[in-house]
Formats: sequence, structure tokens, C-alpha cells
Amino acid sequence: MKSLLIVAHGSRREESNNEVRDLVKKVAGMNHDFYEVRSVFLELAEPLIPDGIRAAIANGATKVVVLPYFLSAGRHVVEDIPADVEIVKAEYPDIEISIAPYLGMAEVIPQILLNQTKQ
Amino acid sequence: MKSLLIVAHGSRREESNNEVRDLVKKVAGMNHDFYEVRSVFLELAEPLIPDGIRAAIANGATKVVVLPYFLSAGRHVVEDIPADVEIVKAEYPDIEISIAPYLGMAEVIPQILLNQTKQ
Repeated sequence: MKSLLIVAHGSRREESNNEVRDLVKKVAGMNHDFYEVRSVFLELAEPLIPDGIRAAIANGATKVVVLPYFLSAGRHVVEDIPADVEIVKAEYPDIEISIAPYLGMAEVIPQILLNQTKQ
Repeated sequence: MKSLLIVAHGSRREESNNEVRDLVKKVAGMNHDFYEVRSVFLELAEPLIPDGIRAAIANGATKVVVLPYFLSAGRHVVEDIPADVEIVKAEYPDIEISIAPYLGMAEVIPQILLNQTKQ
């Protein structure tokens, strides 16, 4: 029972948070082997990362993959997200909680950027 | 003479800014019709957006495409980047300066997120 949590930064603009939630719904509707896909936020929007992981575990997850929807290895990716994950790991030592490579590491990003100039 | 400026947020972590600069070099080395591709930053790193656009024009650009390397339509994309672009548009009314759709609008993002969980 693998759960995917996509972590965005969170914004004071609720439209921006809803944009993330809509994206996560798109991911959930695609072909994959996660039994659920959830959106979580580092700050400014809910649920926050620890609460999102706890909710996934309460819903039956035995593995949780946390995927940072971030573009560069700034402080949030390097320190803040791992720190939030560690909080829940300490609470549930039997659950496997891992952090996937953040979006900005995807090798296709340069080509996607060029494609955006042709829209 | 079209110049592409990729705008990132900018970080206090210089490694993070250099990650963006490396990405922009990758884009520059790909197949496209821009005579140059530059990195610019909204804040915290240099060059800032107005200075980057001015440098492109000084280097011969007659068209400038500003591409937000951002994932959601938060305040930075909706207000701050357009405001910076307007400053330079007022200075150079004969130069065509446009803003391309920000990265997060790319329709392939959900699939790329799933691919990241397989890394």
C-alpha cells in the first residue's frame, strides 16, 4: 500500500494552492501503482507535510513517497522537507517513508522550457 | 534577434542560483531560434529582471521573451514579474518584450512527477 504525497511550498493565494491540488488530482488519475496521491504543503496551506503523512498512514499506507514539487535545491528541499519527514519517521518506525528526487532534477526540464516559448 | 530570459526566484543559497545558471546553459546549448539565453532573478541573486532585459537589448535583442521558471501562478508570476517587465517596456517602447507561460503550465508536468518516483 504505497501512498504518494506531492509537496508544494504553499501560498497565501488560495488559487495557487488549488492549482497544486488540481495538478495532484491529474497525477492521481494517471497510470501508476500508488493507491492514493495526496497534496501536502510545506507552509501557508493545509495539510502540512507531517499531517499529510500521518493521514496517509491512517488510511493504510505502509510505504509513503514524498515528492517535492520544487525546482531547485534550496533550503526547503535540502533541510525543511527532510526535517518534516523525520518527525513522522520517528513516530512510525515501521513505515517506509522516502523522499523522491525533486521535480527540478528531471532531465526533461530544459526541453519543456523551450516548448513553453512556443505556446 | 530574439533573446530568451529564464527567470528564477533567486535564493540566498548560491548553489541554488548556480543550479539555475547551469540549467540555462543547458537550454542555451539545445536546438532553438534564440540568439542567446540568459538567466535572471526576481530577487536575491543577479542579474535582476530589469537589468537582464536591459543587458539583452544592449547586446542587440529586438525581441525579448521572459520565461518564468516557476511552478504556480503565485504573486511572483501574476504581479511581480509583469511589473518588472513593464519597467523596461516603458524605457524601450520599440522592443517587443513578452512573457511566456510559466513552467508549471506545461501539460507534461504530471507525467514528469510520476517519472520522478521511479528514479
